[in-house]
Amino acid sequence: MTAYQQLEARFRRLGALEEAIGVLNWDAATMMPCGGAATRAEQLATLSRLAHDALTAAETGELLVAAESERAALGPWQGANLREMARRHAHAAAVPGELVEALSRVSCACEAVWREARPADDFAAVLPLLEEMLRLQREVAALKAARLGVSPYEALLDRYEPGGSVAAIDRLFNELAEILPELLEAALSRQAELPPCPPSPPRFAVADQRRAAVRLMEAVGFDFAHGRLDISAHPFSSGAPEDVRITTRYDERDFATALMGVLHETGHALYKRNLPAEWRLQPVGAARGMAVHESQSLLLEMQVCRSPAFMRFAAPILREAFCGDGPFWQADWLYRRQIRVARSLIRVEADEVTYPAHVILRYRLEQAMIAGDLRAAELPGAWAEGLRELLGVAPDSDRDGCLQDIHWYDGSWGYFPTYTLGALIAAQLFETACEELPGLMWSIAAGEFMPLFAWLRERVHARGSLLSTAELVENATGRPLDTASFVRHLRRRYLGEGNETAAIALTATST
Amino acid sequence: MTAYQQLEARFRRLGALEEAIGVLNWDAATMMPCGGAATRAEQLATLSRLAHDALTAAETGELLVAAESERAALGPWQGANLREMARRHAHAAAVPGELVEALSRVSCACEAVWREARPADDFAAVLPLLEEMLRLQREVAALKAARLGVSPYEALLDRYEPGGSVAAIDRLFNELAEILPELLEAALSRQAELPPCPPSPPRFAVADQRRAAVRLMEAVGFDFAHGRLDISAHPFSSGAPEDVRITTRYDERDFATALMGVLHETGHALYKRNLPAEWRLQPVGAARGMAVHESQSLLLEMQVCRSPAFMRFAAPILREAFCGDGPFWQADWLYRRQIRVARSLIRVEADEVTYPAHVILRYRLEQAMIAGDLRAAELPGAWAEGLRELLGVAPDSDRDGCLQDIHWYDGSWGYFPTYTLGALIAAQLFETACEELPGLMWSIAAGEFMPLFAWLRERVHARGSLLSTAELVENATGRPLDTASFVRHLRRRYLGEGNETAAIALTATST
Repeated sequence: MTAYQQLEARFRRLGALEEAIGVLNWDAATMMPCGGAATRAEQLATLSRLAHDALTAAETGELLVAAESERAALGPWQGANLREMARRHAHAAAVPGELVEALSRVSCACEAVWREARPADDFAAVLPLLEEMLRLQREVAALKAARLGVSPYEALLDRYEPGGSVAAIDRLFNELAEILPELLEAALSRQAELPPCPPSPPRFAVADQRRAAVRLMEAVGFDFAHGRLDISAHPFSSGAPEDVRITTRYDERDFATALMGVLHETGHALYKRNLPAEWRLQPVGAARGMAVHESQSLLLEMQVCRSPAFMRFAAPILREAFCGDGPFWQADWLYRRQIRVARSLIRVEADEVTYPAHVILRYRLEQAMIAGDLRAAELPGAWAEGLRELLGVAPDSDRDGCLQDIHWYDGSWGYFPTYTLGALIAAQLFETACEELPGLMWSIAAGEFMPLFAWLRERVHARGSLLSTAELVENATGRPLDTASFVRHLRRRYLGEGNETAAIALTATST
Repeated sequence: MTAYQQLEARFRRLGALEEAIGVLNWDAATMMPCGGAATRAEQLATLSRLAHDALTAAETGELLVAAESERAALGPWQGANLREMARRHAHAAAVPGELVEALSRVSCACEAVWREARPADDFAAVLPLLEEMLRLQREVAALKAARLGVSPYEALLDRYEPGGSVAAIDRLFNELAEILPELLEAALSRQAELPPCPPSPPRFAVADQRRAAVRLMEAVGFDFAHGRLDISAHPFSSGAPEDVRITTRYDERDFATALMGVLHETGHALYKRNLPAEWRLQPVGAARGMAVHESQSLLLEMQVCRSPAFMRFAAPILREAFCGDGPFWQADWLYRRQIRVARSLIRVEADEVTYPAHVILRYRLEQAMIAGDLRAAELPGAWAEGLRELLGVAPDSDRDGCLQDIHWYDGSWGYFPTYTLGALIAAQLFETACEELPGLMWSIAAGEFMPLFAWLRERVHARGSLLSTAELVENATGRPLDTASFVRHLRRRYLGEGNETAAIALTATST
């Protein structure tokens, strides 16, 4: 066997081991009784240690060196696979085992304290562990930066968005920070002039919500022979391509939160389901990164499912599932309900127009903390100041401020920018799809999603990690990632410019 | 660290890894969509290989040798732990990796073909793979026999019943084969003279069955903060002491099948739950073996829950769960329904009196096959002949004969005797408990199970694998395992001798 072939065998085992870790995590979030937590932590620590040992073994490093000299004989997928192997090895080998363990322990402890501190609005309670977390994250960032040849923040970002560059993100985010306040103002004015939505039924039974969600998941292409829908405190998608699992939580006063959440996770699931089967368990066969992953969930949720065309298709299904009647269930009102904008304090409840402000705030704050320019203790003040500047509002409490998200407390530093990068990629991909597939919105209105997903599979899903995110976007859309498609999308939807309005007319007359 | 301490660290990781394998298997049987099977097989193969590699690593063998020389400094639990470590290592190291893999492959293939062959009554279809399975099992048996210094059959048995001896089992089983036919004849005669049971309601809703089962599980001591009850095609118990998971399947025409199955699995679960916490993840902290495990499920199901005293406690709970009314729901009739005997062809449907015949048949046949005295092709004929001799009936088809059980087709050779050894141990333990805890049946009738489980915890559960099965039984009951308690139990329950009848009177007058 060549060195490269030995690496494939080695990474195949590692891939299966990581999938097993995924099953244990899914079970912990959905099925495990509360008393099983400590035992599960031990099982996960053992498997994670085995995975880390396999990745950082001296032999793995030697094989990577040997395989580089075989590169000329490798095909493009093999070459990309070797590049991804080396990237994974570099991340793991950059950090000594004791630091990995210390970070893992602090992450568990800090997250546990945060779970109590958030509802109690007690930032001081979690601050000492957050300070320790920041100290270790900066240590990791410095070690990885030296190894990867990038800045410390980019070294953290790279784990979620391989090859992500601060300069590129700054350019995109600064544009958005420039454009969005005025756009939001205009959207709010327009919204205020519209007639009020018809009143909502008081209650939507969970069983009905689930039935509607399953029906729409199946319609867009989710195959329940290869996946599940369950309940968890925080919605997520997980699993392997042949066994994709998504979760949601139901609110009996509002069916749309769970439904849109389910369709969001279904976007993640269909990406995973359609990853290149011939590269299963190899690094190059994995999803490209969290920005592309998020683009697939946002493309389905925001571009497709919150469109007038989709609501035209979904309205009769929803009416049937909930035995609904009256104006509330008309497609145009269902659509209008899904596109309301507001200056809110909470990221996960934010709309498309204000969401980037929440992300940009966090991106800037975590950059400043990693750079040593902002101490953890200064976070509440910097948060209020930053949000006021970006969105014109500030929280009364840390619960609605810097305690609201789990990321910094569970160790996910450098993750936040992927949300808005995903939104930009989603808009650019969908705009291209609409140009290349004439009548796409009509297909969606008719419940035909095959053309869109065939296109996405070819341009995105089946490419796995063959290309960088930047190459993937440019290859799929004909130009580098920018903010233009996203801004056009927002102007269409929230300011009534162009074809989204036309689609409403279509919907209003036909249901 | 001493060699022994290094072994503890090593086996702790192995224990956590094996528990992770358990979670993956539980998920596969209860939650996994059908399309996930191949992926799960790959995950399980990878983890099993890691476990096997850890167990057979040269260092493990060297540490075991070194630890033997430290034995004088070890306490009794540590000494027993070292013995169990050596036993596990010997089993794993006796068989070369290629043979383990070949057996694993044949087991998967043979089980898959059996799943089709059984409903189709097509023994010929599975025979080639069964022959290959037998060939490999004989190879494994010979290798392990040489290593362990026991007979080939005992080497297979040892995996499920450590230290199990054919001579001891032969003596017990031959006694039963001698005594039971006459006892069965008498029980059938007595049963024929009793008035017929009142007619059953036509349907028991699954939700009601589950509610009743959960209520009774909680009553006997199952803690849902540390466990779950789910549905699977074949009931089983699984999980870790802090997260014990049992399954059942529901039959809407008969609530008792699922209920008694749940209580059976609850017996397994409470054993696991009460294993010695200070020896978690160490071999000495594990359950003693499948005979003792089965004794705990049968003690709860057969000795406790099919008793008149338990039915007195359960009857009002069942009436409430099913909104039941009339004679069917009276404790004495509920009891009588649970103790009906019949010469049946199917082991899993058999009653206490006839069950040993089914086990003895399989025990003798698998011994003959491993010894080379019976070929797989001769199984149908030998089955019919053996069952007629032991029970007076013979199947019309292989579906109701040698195709009925999964064991030989999935590779569980040497497992069958543990069922009846478990029944014998259960009877001897429970008889001792009744002697040492006066009023135990009255406690059970009052729904108080703490005294019994405190006794079982002390005598059995909390001892883990400290003692051999033979020592455990003798320590707990004051005499070596024999058939006397079991036969006395059967004579009481099925021939109306002694106190079980008195308990019926108690029940009949009070509900």
